[in-house]
Amino acid sequence: MSSNDKKSTMTKKRLINSISQDKGIHPNDVRHVVQAFLDKMTECLTNGDRLEFRDFGVFEVVERKQKIGRNPKNAAVPIIIPARPAVKFTPGKKMRKQIECSGSKCSTATK
Amino acid sequence: MSSNDKKSTMTKKRLINSISQDKGIHPNDVRHVVQAFLDKMTECLTNGDRLEFRDFGVFEVVERKQKIGRNPKNAAVPIIIPARPAVKFTPGKKMRKQIECSGSKCSTATK
Repeated sequence: MSSNDKKSTMTKKRLINSISQDKGIHPNDVRHVVQAFLDKMTECLTNGDRLEFRDFGVFEVVERKQKIGRNPKNAAVPIIIPARPAVKFTPGKKMRKQIECSGSKCSTATK
Repeated sequence: MSSNDKKSTMTKKRLINSISQDKGIHPNDVRHVVQAFLDKMTECLTNGDRLEFRDFGVFEVVERKQKIGRNPKNAAVPIIIPARPAVKFTPGKKMRKQIECSGSKCSTATK
């Protein structure tokens, strides 16, 4: 990503502090719920469940196919990367629209 | 995914109720924090920030390249799908390990 040089990393801690300030809830209480939420999500995905949050998006476990990799230092020898489960996130309509709009050319139209 | 027939969909509401029961916090209070958390995440991603949650994973906005699509009813006419920003989620080590283990063959070894 070269188009966006203000890109920074937001950690869980900073996000929790920010919510705490905005909502006037003690950071410990926010952390407690946020951690429980993330843990539950992990638990559900581990069980193979699909997670669907309206406006936000969908998480699901999909199967990545087996593929052939190469060691760049020894390209003659193929390396078989076995099929494995992966987590796929698909943003919801609202988030997608916001991100596409912020990215670049976004008319004021609400098509 | 045909390998997993117990796959079900978990909604935000069900997740909130489950956290509320587990932690003994009123569902409204859980909802308040969870919604603020999801909204903040959307806001950060819209700003182009990377979100990094230890153990859980990383969210970031990446650029999907332009590609050529086909209308299956009229395959002769190519459709240009323009480049667009997309949200990429990469699960953290802990989550990945849990999902890979649950998926199938997982030895008890902790390599």
